[in-house]
Order: sequence, then structure tokens, then C-alpha cells
Amino acid sequence: MYTFANPLDRALRTVPDACAVVCNGHRRSYAELAFRCRKLAGALYGLGLRRGDRVGVVSLNSDRYLELYLTVPAAGLTLVPVNSRLAVAEMQAILADSGASVVFTDADYAGASNVSRVLSLPGDYEQLIAGAPERALGESVSEGDVAVLFYTSGTTGVAKGAIHTHRSLVTSGLHFMATWPFDAQTRWLVASPMFHTGGTIGMLATVWAGGTHVMMPSFKPDIALDLIEAEAVTHTLLVPTMLAATVTEQEARPRGIGSLRYLSHGASPIASETLRRTHATFPAAELLHVYGTTEATPIATLLPHEERVIGTPMDRSCGQPAIGVELRITDKAGNELRAGQVGEIVVRSPSLMSGYWNKPAETREAIDDHGWYHTGDLGYQDAWGWLYLVDRAKDMIVSGGENIYSTEVENALAAHPSVSEAAVFGVPDDRWGERVFAIVVTRQQVTQDELILHCRDHIAGFKVPRQIEMRTDPLPKSAAGKVLKRDLRDPHWTGRHLKVAGS
Amino acid sequence: MYTFANPLDRALRTVPDACAVVCNGHRRSYAELAFRCRKLAGALYGLGLRRGDRVGVVSLNSDRYLELYLTVPAAGLTLVPVNSRLAVAEMQAILADSGASVVFTDADYAGASNVSRVLSLPGDYEQLIAGAPERALGESVSEGDVAVLFYTSGTTGVAKGAIHTHRSLVTSGLHFMATWPFDAQTRWLVASPMFHTGGTIGMLATVWAGGTHVMMPSFKPDIALDLIEAEAVTHTLLVPTMLAATVTEQEARPRGIGSLRYLSHGASPIASETLRRTHATFPAAELLHVYGTTEATPIATLLPHEERVIGTPMDRSCGQPAIGVELRITDKAGNELRAGQVGEIVVRSPSLMSGYWNKPAETREAIDDHGWYHTGDLGYQDAWGWLYLVDRAKDMIVSGGENIYSTEVENALAAHPSVSEAAVFGVPDDRWGERVFAIVVTRQQVTQDELILHCRDHIAGFKVPRQIEMRTDPLPKSAAGKVLKRDLRDPHWTGRHLKVAGS
Repeated sequence: MYTFANPLDRALRTVPDACAVVCNGHRRSYAELAFRCRKLAGALYGLGLRRGDRVGVVSLNSDRYLELYLTVPAAGLTLVPVNSRLAVAEMQAILADSGASVVFTDADYAGASNVSRVLSLPGDYEQLIAGAPERALGESVSEGDVAVLFYTSGTTGVAKGAIHTHRSLVTSGLHFMATWPFDAQTRWLVASPMFHTGGTIGMLATVWAGGTHVMMPSFKPDIALDLIEAEAVTHTLLVPTMLAATVTEQEARPRGIGSLRYLSHGASPIASETLRRTHATFPAAELLHVYGTTEATPIATLLPHEERVIGTPMDRSCGQPAIGVELRITDKAGNELRAGQVGEIVVRSPSLMSGYWNKPAETREAIDDHGWYHTGDLGYQDAWGWLYLVDRAKDMIVSGGENIYSTEVENALAAHPSVSEAAVFGVPDDRWGERVFAIVVTRQQVTQDELILHCRDHIAGFKVPRQIEMRTDPLPKSAAGKVLKRDLRDPHWTGRHLKVAGS
Repeated sequence: MYTFANPLDRALRTVPDACAVVCNGHRRSYAELAFRCRKLAGALYGLGLRRGDRVGVVSLNSDRYLELYLTVPAAGLTLVPVNSRLAVAEMQAILADSGASVVFTDADYAGASNVSRVLSLPGDYEQLIAGAPERALGESVSEGDVAVLFYTSGTTGVAKGAIHTHRSLVTSGLHFMATWPFDAQTRWLVASPMFHTGGTIGMLATVWAGGTHVMMPSFKPDIALDLIEAEAVTHTLLVPTMLAATVTEQEARPRGIGSLRYLSHGASPIASETLRRTHATFPAAELLHVYGTTEATPIATLLPHEERVIGTPMDRSCGQPAIGVELRITDKAGNELRAGQVGEIVVRSPSLMSGYWNKPAETREAIDDHGWYHTGDLGYQDAWGWLYLVDRAKDMIVSGGENIYSTEVENALAAHPSVSEAAVFGVPDDRWGERVFAIVVTRQQVTQDELILHCRDHIAGFKVPRQIEMRTDPLPKSAAGKVLKRDLRDPHWTGRHLKVAGS
């Protein structure tokens, strides 16, 4: 009985004149926003779209992206936000898998036209809105309808669309609000990319409360601080890389940041030193650590008032299960483990995805018969439910808030004729949390630069190895012939610990 | 996917040693509380109860009442909290309607034994728990299962059980938390009776956050203040009568009340003067006005920071729709009215009841095909969604937080051989909000005291008229023969306005 139409409807009825969004200095009230959303809904049906059809978006953050979020699901359609940093081939695969018949984009993603009708932002978009009739939002929409497909890669290297219904996303917003207050005075800085669940985490909460979105098309620390000062930003979510850069900028050229009371971060490992500097630089802000995954929308655990535990062993924790979320540590047989024992982190909540788009086998593997989602992450909880992440079962690297599956990168390397074997893993990186590191066994002469150029043709830039170590001897293997990747990786991590992964 | 088991499970896993409840100086941690709840679940099945069976409670507030709330639904059974102020005949009717096979009671409600097995609190209860095996909570329970039946009278004078599912009540707790912060430091004073939805409003929020319940078996202003001081109470909900008495007591004998930061009230009309005195006496507390009904669990609108509008026309409002709740003003045909127009208040939300127990006709009348619950209250909204209550379509009196349907009282009076006609309505009362006023037409000599004694045999004491005006001339009637009750009532209300009703 919750739909995406509810938050906007409430804002429209309670704070119609309040500023809903400011983007590049342009402001729109909730009344204007809702009017444009109704016109957009009319335009989408005017394009011939029908209930259940998918609408892709490849774009930087913008007020129009917000309109697409608030319109497409509420009009009975499904939004497919695509990571704009992906290689064209990767985008094509996602748009093809989702079956998006239309894609809105602010750049020249010509490749997308293979599968979808491409409409430009803002050109085609504004023209459509100008000419369209209004269409009511939320009518004949059920809370179990598919609202958004968030694509995530996986161990197989094939992108999977995590199905989020109206209910799962709206519920996730409520879970966030049950921990952090949002009201009509909230000004949420949209700093993280809106194609990730993390970038949308505060959106529904902000709309429901009638607060203001302060849009950053793409992240720059100096612009973030300028906006915090100029727009009196109260809340935001940053990935640790952004956080560290913002702290450095504020140390060098301080702005007035007293309005910022709620500063959350997630999606990547974070160093204690970054936390310490963040608290010193933003002393009035409550720090909140968020751990979750695309499948868990993306709040699984929260650590409110993280500033209170800096310098203690608890600053390596991801916090306790969020209100509304059940979390367990289980062994391979699915039995719950005791405090202190390391096992797989599993999660259950109405905020969970309902499965992977058109992938029943992968869905059954990810969500068991009792509704538990298997994150693939390994960790333990103490006697008070504080979660400590130990490792990722899924062989995933998290760099600057982006998930990178080693298999994807290994496949790209192995496709080069000079490479006979490849092992890819993350190594510690002060700026990005982790960076992609590869060890390749070559069968003939090849340079690191040649391999990197080769990778760029196949996978997104952020997935390309930053360093490649060349070998001619075979990689160490188990008796069963499996590469002992941990033996290769562990020397790089001596004395370092992983704080958090996900999103 | 939400059940009553979730909040307790989270508290057990995150703050097992924290104080869950203090009652008459006795404290229990969440670990102890959860242990007793598992034993209670075992005991209930040991009594022969099976999934879906109803369990009645007639009791003052207590730690055991909290255990019954947290156990009965989570064990797959349905709780039926009965207003302990009702007449025995009224209780019997409720227990019979619900089909409760067991009733727990802290008093000698012998009449209840007609329909249910009567077990004493604490005697039988403690004996059962001591001898029972533990039984897991929340297993095989679905969020759509009936968790609690809250009985409410109606225009026909027959009590109806509002069906609340696991989801509706848990959701209501989340809606409350989306407006007011609850965390492990919250100490919630349970001052309102737990047999009303209002008395349970903060319970799930407090459990989910791992806070402490400070129990008041029955309300006394001096004890309330002593507890606020001794237990550092942070949050509570009072009906206006309790609020006014507490303010008077604090003015006379001040306690240390600086811990009280969140002071909510609802369920009755409140005078501006009471608000003004409350703010003067509890200057550090945010005031929150709650409007709702038993059917709406019970939050429909909220007015946070009410202290900011005291002395303005907005202090007569009940606030704006709560986050998660849709609210409209409609005409008789169900069309939505514009700002400023008076019509019926209708509400839609996942927190709504799903219907009346075994009353499909009344359910269809109360909830329309689109899921809107018709409150029967009349009001209007301004252009910002602020709700102003004008009248109650249902001919209901709200006195000291209790709903009284005029028809019930009129029926009781008309049953007396000396009475030929009776009209009952509420008149303003500084202490109770409204008090019950009757005009009767007599056919033979009878005194006011005789009629009051007669009423006491048939209906609860709080429903008995405080004043009875005797007439021998017939009551004024419309052409259709309907008593013109408004003509009788209006002179009593000149210059007064109704602020809020419900719950």
C-alpha cells in the first residue's frame, strides 16, 4: 500500500511552495516538481510506453534525474538507472537485459540505440514535457510492482538487475528516517551518483519530509563545500573517497559548514585516520556509517554517532542492524553462529530486493526459502550485534564506492592473446579504499600499458587494473587446481584491515 | 514481512542487558523480558491454544501486559485488550464477540468466565511461566496475520473489534519514529491505558530502539512526575486530562523534569490555555499533538513542535498527515474537497486496520473499495494540509480520552420505564475535554440520581451522564421525525471550539 507516489503527494499537500530541488542555481518548488512529473508521466505514455515497461537513464545527477525517479515508478513503469561510468558494451548489456524501450541520457551513448530509443537530456526531455498532457501519478500502482532495477555485476561478470519494488524502496526510506530525523528543514546534498542505491538513499526520506535536494551533477570537493555553505546543507552521504577529499579541501580553505549536522558515509572501506580528520573538520556533525548492498537497498547496518567511537576498536565496526532489518551470521549450512564467530552475513527485511530480473536461478541462490539474502560478505558480530566485516566471499573489490568483481577483470585480461593466467584482487589504497591489482602469467612478450589499453576496450575505466605484476611461472594452486588468490593477496594487506564493503 | 517478533528480537540482539521495563520498582532487561516471553508462548500452547486463537486481557498497565503484547501475536495468536473500565456486561460482549478462549485479568471479573477461561495476574500467570518450556517467537507468523483486536463502540452501541495485523501496528511504530527520534536512551512513560491504541503507540518504537518502558499501572499526576524525575523519562503520551493534572501538580510541587524532551498528547479536545501552561511548565519539551482513531492505529495527523504555534490560530489544528499516511477531505459522494471546505476526513495507510472482526457489512461501510477509511469526523484542511476538526459525524463524545457513543447512553436511558425520549451529547469540560450531558423526556416521576444509578448497571461509569436535564415536552424534531440534537447541543458550545477527537 506504499507507492513511490506517496512521498511526493505528501510534500505537494503540505509544503507546495517549499524548494524541492536546487540544481545549478535553478530552484523548483514541490508544486512545480509535481507538475513537471505529471507532464512527464503523460509524455511517457505519449511515447507509447505501457504499464510495466522499462525506462533507462544514463546521466549525471540532476533535477531531471530526480523527476525520473519520482515519475517513472509512480506512473506504473520501471526505472533502470545505468552507471554512466561503464563501458558502452556494459551499458548495452544492461539495457538489453532490462528490455528498456526508452533511454534518457545527457551524453552521446550512441551504443545504447541498439536496444532502446535514445532521448537526450535536457533537449528531448524538455520538449516532451512541454508538449505533454498531465497524467495522475500513483493510480493503479501496487506496492509489489517493480519500481527500479539497480544493476550490479557479480562473480560471473554478468550484470544482474536487482528488482526493487515500490514497497522495498519506500520502506528503506522509512528505516533511514527511523534512525535519522528528516523534516521540512532538511537540505540533502545529493553527492553520490544517483545510479547507485547509495545515491538515492536519502531521496525518498527528503521528499516525504518535504525537504530540499541540493544537486551535485558530479562530485568535486570544492563545489560540495561551496554548496554546503551557500545552501545550508544539513544532511549528506559520501563515499570515503569523497569524504577524504572534502576534509582535505576544508582544511585548506575553510567554508561555513555549521549547518551540516548529519554526515553519513558508506560503500567502501574507511580508514580510522579519515574518520578522525572528518570529526575534527566537521565537529558539529553526527557521523553515520552505512553498510549494505544494492540488493538490500542499501541499508543493512547503521552506526549512528560514529564520532563517539573513533579511536576505539568499535570504529572498525559497521554498526548494528538497522531498525526494520534482521541480520544473522551463518555457517555454510545456514545455521546461525554465535557472537565472535565468522560466517556469511545474511539479511532479511521488507526493504530487500525481491530477486534478480529474469534470473530465477541466481535469485534462488541469493535469497533462500525463508527470505534471507546471502550477501556473500564474511563477518562476525559481538554480543551486542555490532558487525565487523572480515572478507568478501564474492571476490569483490570496492574502489571509490564502486563494486568491481575480480572475475570481470580476470576475464578481460584472459581475453588478451599474450595472457595465459590472471588473478585480480584489491590492495589497500589511501584515496580509493582499495585499488585493482592484477597478477598475470604471460605466454609471450607484452607490456603493462598494452594490457591496460586492452582492458579499457572491454570494461569500465574504474575496473581497469592500476598495477599489473607480470610472471612467467604458473600461479600457485590448490590440489583441486584452484588459484590460491588469498596467498597472492594477503602480503599486500599485512597490518591493514577492511572496514566495510557493499552498496 | 514485518512481525511483532522483529522489534523484540532486535532489542535482544543489540541491547540484551539494557533495562526493557521498570514497573513498581522492579526492573527487567531485554534478555530477561525475551526469556519470559518465550516461556509465556510455551505456556499458552501448553494451555491448548492453537494458531489464530484469541487471548483476552483485562488489566491495569504492567510489565506483564507488555509481555502479553510482545508474546501473544508473535506466537501466532491474537491479543484482545479489553477496557478495564467497562461494565461487566460490556466486557462479556467483547470477549464473546472475539471468541477469546483465555482471559488474563488482575481483578475479579467473574462475569468473563461465561465465555473464557479466566487466569489471574500475577498468580496464575507467574505459575504458568514458571512451569512452561520456551517456545520460539515469530516462527511461521505472517505480517498479514491478526495481531490485536482493539474494541471500539460505535453508533449502534455494539462494540466492534478493529483488526490490526502485525504489519499495521509495526508500520504505525515506524511512522511515529519517522517524526520523533527513539533510540536506546529513550525512556517511555506508559501513562495512558494499554487497552487503547494510544497507550501502545510508543511501545513498538521503544522496543525497536531498545529503550526503556516506565510503567504506570494507573495514572496519578504526582506519581507521573515522581517517575519522570526518578527514571529520567524522555518521552510520553498523555490525554489532555492527564496533561492538565500533571501541569497543576508540577506548578504546585516542582520536580526535576529536565529529562522530558518529547511530550505528546491526543485523543481529546485540548484547550489553548492547557497548551500554554504545559509549555510554561515543561519548557524543554517538544509538544506533539496526535490525532487518529482506533481504526487508524492511531496516528493520522501529527503536529510536531506544537509549542511554536501556541497562541496562533494554528494551535487549534491537529497538524499535518503523518509520514506514511494519506488523508483527504471528501464530500458525501467521495469527491475530494478543496482547502477550506468542510467534509469527512478519510485516511489510507498500511497502518490502517484491515476491518472489523466478523463484521463484513460494517467493514465495507468503514473502508471503501480504494482502501480509504471513513473516520466519520468532519473537518477541513488549509492549503498546507493542516487539519482542523469541526465536528464528529458519528455523534461521539470524547471525555478524558475515552470515546463515548451517544447512542449507547441514549439506549441505556431509554431502557428506564420512566423515560420516553433521550438525547445525549457532549458539553465542554475544562478537566475532561467534554462531559456527557443528557436531556430526557419523562413519562412519570423520576430523579436524576435514579437515572444515573440505572445507567451504572448498564454501561461503564465513564459513559454515565454527569448532568441530566428533565423535560416533559417532546424533543424538537425535523420534519422526518429526527431529533434535532444540534439545536440542543449548540447553546452549550457558544464561543468554544473542539480541537481534536479520536483514538
